[in-house]
Amino acid sequence: MNRQWLYAQQPKGKITADTFQWREAAIPEPQPGEALVQTRLLSLDPANRAWMMGKTYRDALQPGEVMNGFTIGVVVESRAAGLAKGDIVEGDWGWQDYAALPARRLTRRTTDAPLEMLIGPLSVTGLTAYFGLLEIGQPKPGDTVLVSAAAGAVGSMVGQIAKIAGCRVVGTAGGQDKCDWLVRELGFDAAVDYKAGGVFRALRTACPDGIDVYFDNTGGPVLDAALSLMNLRGRIACCGNVSQYDVEKPAPGPMAVPGLVVTKRLRMEGFIVMDFYDRRAEAERRLAHWIAEGRLKAMVDVFDGLEKAPDALIGLFEGNNRGKRAVRV
Amino acid sequence: MNRQWLYAQQPKGKITADTFQWREAAIPEPQPGEALVQTRLLSLDPANRAWMMGKTYRDALQPGEVMNGFTIGVVVESRAAGLAKGDIVEGDWGWQDYAALPARRLTRRTTDAPLEMLIGPLSVTGLTAYFGLLEIGQPKPGDTVLVSAAAGAVGSMVGQIAKIAGCRVVGTAGGQDKCDWLVRELGFDAAVDYKAGGVFRALRTACPDGIDVYFDNTGGPVLDAALSLMNLRGRIACCGNVSQYDVEKPAPGPMAVPGLVVTKRLRMEGFIVMDFYDRRAEAERRLAHWIAEGRLKAMVDVFDGLEKAPDALIGLFEGNNRGKRAVRV
Repeated sequence: MNRQWLYAQQPKGKITADTFQWREAAIPEPQPGEALVQTRLLSLDPANRAWMMGKTYRDALQPGEVMNGFTIGVVVESRAAGLAKGDIVEGDWGWQDYAALPARRLTRRTTDAPLEMLIGPLSVTGLTAYFGLLEIGQPKPGDTVLVSAAAGAVGSMVGQIAKIAGCRVVGTAGGQDKCDWLVRELGFDAAVDYKAGGVFRALRTACPDGIDVYFDNTGGPVLDAALSLMNLRGRIACCGNVSQYDVEKPAPGPMAVPGLVVTKRLRMEGFIVMDFYDRRAEAERRLAHWIAEGRLKAMVDVFDGLEKAPDALIGLFEGNNRGKRAVRV
Repeated sequence: MNRQWLYAQQPKGKITADTFQWREAAIPEPQPGEALVQTRLLSLDPANRAWMMGKTYRDALQPGEVMNGFTIGVVVESRAAGLAKGDIVEGDWGWQDYAALPARRLTRRTTDAPLEMLIGPLSVTGLTAYFGLLEIGQPKPGDTVLVSAAAGAVGSMVGQIAKIAGCRVVGTAGGQDKCDWLVRELGFDAAVDYKAGGVFRALRTACPDGIDVYFDNTGGPVLDAALSLMNLRGRIACCGNVSQYDVEKPAPGPMAVPGLVVTKRLRMEGFIVMDFYDRRAEAERRLAHWIAEGRLKAMVDVFDGLEKAPDALIGLFEGNNRGKRAVRV
C-alpha cells in the first residue's frame, strides 16, 4: 500500500488540515528506465506553501496531486541504469511512501552521513545557506550580516557560516527563547525578537555599524527595517518571503524600493539553490567538514510518521521549529 | 551683482514658485585656493527634487541655501593652482550667477564640445545612461531593454545606447507625441504611453519576449509592471524614482519585491554615476564618438535666463521636456 497526502485545495489564508487529504493507493510499478523508491524522510520547507500560491520557479501545485516536497529514500526496485536496490536517493517525489521515477529525477547519494543530514544540512537547506550567503551576499570579514528567520533551517546555517566567514552576525526570530538559543547555542552576536515590536529600533541597536549583508528569508517588516539600516553598497540576498506566504492578503511592498536602493547603491538579488548545483560537491564537502569540526551545528527537528506531515508544515508557519524540520516516514 | 535662487521651503506635494526665493547678493571674493566662476548653464534634473525630501547620496537641501544643481561655467578669477581665467569648469554650485569655490569642487573641461553638450550628454546625464545601462544592466545583444522616462535626459540616451549595443528597446513616456518621437526620431522599437492606462498590458504587447534589462528612472507603476514581465535572471538598474519625488504621499512599494525577485532570480541594483567617475574619460570619448557619428542624438532643451529656473524645473515634473533640460544664465 502506498500512503499519500494529496494537496486537496488552495488555502485561503493559513494552511489547515483541510488543505490536505489522505489517500491509500497501490504501490506503483516502475517502468523501464525507472526506479521504485521508498521514502525515508520528507523535507518540510516554507517553499511548500509558496508553491500553493501560483507559479514560482516551478509550476503551482494543483489540487488532487500528491503534495510535493523534497525527499530522501531508498531504491527498492530498479529498472534504471545506474541505480541499484539499496541506493540512497534524493528527489522531490513528495508526501508518499513510494514513487516510481525516471533516473533523471533521482540523485544518488554516496556519503555515509546520516539521512537526517542528507535531508537538509547537506542538501537543499545547507546549500541554500552556503551559496546564498557566500555567492549572493558576498560577505567580507568584519561585515555585519543580518539574517531573518534565523532559527529556521536556512537561517540558522546562514548565521553560523557568516561567523565562520569572520562577520558580526545578527538574527531575527519569533520569541525570546529562540533568540536566546541563537546567541547561546549558535554563537550569534545578537538576536532580535520580531514579535516583540519595535523591530527597527531593536535592529538599529543590534547593528550599531549598520548592515552590510542582509540574508532575507522573510520579506515584510524585517526587510523594511533592514533596507533603512543597510550600509552603502550593501547586498540583500533574496531567498524567501515567508512572512507573506501563509496569509490571506499579502502586505504592501517595501516603501524603500527603489528609493533607498538607488541612493545607497544597494544590490538586491534573488537566487534558487538549484542554480548552483554544478558546484554542489564543493559546498557539501565544506559543510560536512564544518559540521564534523563542531563549528556548524546542524539542527534537524524530526516528526515521526507520514500522518504527521500536515501538522509539521502547519507548525512551521507557527514558528515552532528550530533548524530543519523533517518527517520520518 | 550675484543673482540667486534660494531653496525657500520644503514643498508639500508638488514644487511651486513658492518653493524658491529670488535674491540679489554681492559677488563673492575668492579666497586663496579658490576660483570665482561665472555660471553659463544650469542642469535641471529630477534629482533636484529628491534632494528636498531628505538625505540621499548627499545631505538634504536646507531652506535658505542657494538652490543646488549641476552647473557649467567659466573661471573669471583664480587664486587656485591649476585653474586660470577663461577655463571652462563643471561643478554643482547651483542656481546663481557666480560662486567662489575651492579647486577640488571644480572639474576643468578641456574638450571643444559645445557647452550644451557639457551640461548633460557629455556629463552627468550621458554618463548615468552609459554606466547604468552597460555596467549595472549588463545588456547582451538581442536582449529586450525597457527604459522608463524614456523621453527624458537619461532615458533617451539609455535607449539609444541600448540600440547601439544590439538590443531591442522599448521606452515608456507620458503622451503619444513623446512616444512617436522615441520611435521615429530616436529609433526605439516601441514606446508605451504610461498615461494612457493599461500599462501592464501595453508593455506585455511591446515586449513579447519579456524584459531582460529594465533601466528604472521612475519606480511606481512601470516598475510594478516591469517586475511582472522580467525574464529569468533579468537585471533592473535602479537609477531614479521620479514618479515618487513630486508627490505628497509616495505610493506603496512594489508588491513583487521580494517575491518575484526570488523566483525569477532578478537583480535590482542602485547606482550613482559618480561611483564610476574614475572611468569617465573612456565613457565620454565613446559618447562623443557616437554623437559625432549621428548614432546618438543628444537633445538639449535650453531655457534662457536664470529667472526661468523654477518654471523649468516645475515643467520637468509635468513632463514637458524632451531630452536634457538646462537653463542658460
